[in-house]
Amino acid sequence: TVRKLFLLPGDGIGPEAMNEVRKIISYMNAELGGTYETDEGLVGGSAYDAHGVAISEEDMAKAMAADAVLFGAVGGPQWDAVPYDVRPEAGLLRLRKDLELFANLRPAICYPALASASSLKPELVEGLDILIVRELTGGVYFGEPKTITDLGNGQKRAIDTQVYDTYEIERISAVAFELARTRKNAVCSMEKRNVMKSGVLWNQVLTELHKAKFADVKLDHMLADAGGMQLVRAPKQFDVIVTDNLFGDMLSDVASMLTGSLGMLPSASLGAPDGKTGQRKAMYEPVHGSAPDIAGKGIANPIAMIASFAMCLRYSFGEVAQADALEKAIANVLDRGIRTGDIMAEGCKQVGTVEMGDAILAEFKSL
Amino acid sequence: TVRKLFLLPGDGIGPEAMNEVRKIISYMNAELGGTYETDEGLVGGSAYDAHGVAISEEDMAKAMAADAVLFGAVGGPQWDAVPYDVRPEAGLLRLRKDLELFANLRPAICYPALASASSLKPELVEGLDILIVRELTGGVYFGEPKTITDLGNGQKRAIDTQVYDTYEIERISAVAFELARTRKNAVCSMEKRNVMKSGVLWNQVLTELHKAKFADVKLDHMLADAGGMQLVRAPKQFDVIVTDNLFGDMLSDVASMLTGSLGMLPSASLGAPDGKTGQRKAMYEPVHGSAPDIAGKGIANPIAMIASFAMCLRYSFGEVAQADALEKAIANVLDRGIRTGDIMAEGCKQVGTVEMGDAILAEFKSL
Ligand SMILES: CC(C)[C@H](C(=O)O)[C@@H](O)C(=O)O
Ligand SMILES: CC(C)[C@H](C(=O)O)[C@@H](O)C(=O)O
Repeated sequence: TVRKLFLLPGDGIGPEAMNEVRKIISYMNAELGGTYETDEGLVGGSAYDAHGVAISEEDMAKAMAADAVLFGAVGGPQWDAVPYDVRPEAGLLRLRKDLELFANLRPAICYPALASASSLKPELVEGLDILIVRELTGGVYFGEPKTITDLGNGQKRAIDTQVYDTYEIERISAVAFELARTRKNAVCSMEKRNVMKSGVLWNQVLTELHKAKFADVKLDHMLADAGGMQLVRAPKQFDVIVTDNLFGDMLSDVASMLTGSLGMLPSASLGAPDGKTGQRKAMYEPVHGSAPDIAGKGIANPIAMIASFAMCLRYSFGEVAQADALEKAIANVLDRGIRTGDIMAEGCKQVGTVEMGDAILAEFKSL
Repeated sequence: TVRKLFLLPGDGIGPEAMNEVRKIISYMNAELGGTYETDEGLVGGSAYDAHGVAISEEDMAKAMAADAVLFGAVGGPQWDAVPYDVRPEAGLLRLRKDLELFANLRPAICYPALASASSLKPELVEGLDILIVRELTGGVYFGEPKTITDLGNGQKRAIDTQVYDTYEIERISAVAFELARTRKNAVCSMEKRNVMKSGVLWNQVLTELHKAKFADVKLDHMLADAGGMQLVRAPKQFDVIVTDNLFGDMLSDVASMLTGSLGMLPSASLGAPDGKTGQRKAMYEPVHGSAPDIAGKGIANPIAMIASFAMCLRYSFGEVAQADALEKAIANVLDRGIRTGDIMAEGCKQVGTVEMGDAILAEFKSL
């Protein structure tokens, strides 16, 4: 059966990084019996320039019909002043919402070869392997009202609304507990129940689900501000962290920076399993942004995009061995001192986007 | 004229830390011509135990009438299950709201003697001196609706509301710009304008105020998630950071952890200058919490509480020389290797709360 991949390279360095994934897909189709069929669309500023919206209905339909979406990055200074509803990020948010990708998996791992690139002391991050499970379709990102109102007298009022229902908290918590069982079996939940009602409900629902169905998993609760502190103080204390959309945004960025491997970190956004097929809608994207300052120069690091494709092999297609091999290929290439500019270190060899992609593909072939 | 200080030691290590400040106040009254008059109340769990509320009306009235409030810390496991409205934090939040303490100043400085205690590489934090200016009476902390509703079917819905009006953004921005002028003249504003309408308004209002009145101050904007990353990557790039209540909560905790001096960091919460007297309502409190696990053992670090009193001398009473001297006394004592357990290092002398307070007072007397 054909496996339909829909590619949305987006803006900035997105297209360059996506090209390196394309090479891997072609190789898998040609040599490994892969049945991947790719189609491509526009998202973000490039969609706005072409269609006046951050993603067209046609591309949304293709994303809905695909087995998996690979997403590059969106945004850039040339779109800073476009209307709020069609800003580049609106395309990303619509994909997440309409595909109901409620579970965002953000691994923060420290590649051994890069431990010294972390701003943290190496002993604190060596071997770091955290998984942040972020709720992605609820909370303040999508709650209504979300408005700016003119009050007269030169005063305006802006409102954003954080909304969480029991079922939203339950389903993201279940994902976190299930993933923990495949790892070190420990979940830390982060919210601000001392200030937010959504934190109170989050804490209750998660605690009850834990008692009812996941009592074998070690569970801790931390206030989100203290969680941010602890991530910086001693990140290795964590296995799986589960948290809401906005805290997840902040905490996963902090966590990714700890690894010294930012620009290297992938993410997966998953929907609920289909009742009949068991298949989940899914989108895979690098944690890094569009990096407009280095776009088009051929120097961007494609590793996060390639690692996102490895997550796609693992979570959408169950190709665990191939996913493992692709991740190993990345680690081996780093071990051999091949580096793009962003992760360059003394004694290493600096290469561009294409050479990095080639090196990983060559290594992947050899494994 | 009498200077009225209202002390709210609170729970956990709050009372122990406050005792060390009392000694300094007594000395200033006895030897330096101080005219400080102190009264004391209950807040948090201790107020709940005595009165069934997190702060009594009588103590609120005293706080309103004081020239400055010194606040210790609130909370502890024995009050985890008390009703939401009377939980320990409710006392703190009511003080902030009713005194209209909209400007929370959180310095993140790295005491040279403690640079090696940071989890960051020493060169990244040595000499670090950031000031986080956090909006403290608005946003999701106080916006309505803030509810949990039963939807039937076993489903509940939690709602929190982030609200910001133009004037709230203007007044906190003005504080940040004014403080920047006394420092390195640079402000970085952090919000999520790509997702939140309050971020859009925040950005607009601050940008306009900058153009109209503070064009001499260098201004940058950063998305709050990227800001969290940058704090970990290269904290010295910042001078003053201005941000909303919830982002300020998260970002200031991350920033304080960077310094290796957590447990040492003070904060000031200021209201608007009184129309007649120019006097601001003010409350001073350590950034650390009530640390119930070490409470009552005589080992808590009183430095954050003492440094909070130094901020009180500076901002409420204009006693700049005395504030400088008290801060210098703290730094000198650390330089001499006198340490409480939380900041103990090889070759240093470990002391308890009282000895640390005594050492700082002795040093202060000698300056
Ligand atoms: C681009 C932006 C809308 C997005 C978010 O805030 O979720 C990004 O920061 C992320 O974390 O994927
Ligand atoms: C105790 C809590 C309510 C408080 C807050 O969230 O503001 C604390 O974390 C702080 O930063 O002062």
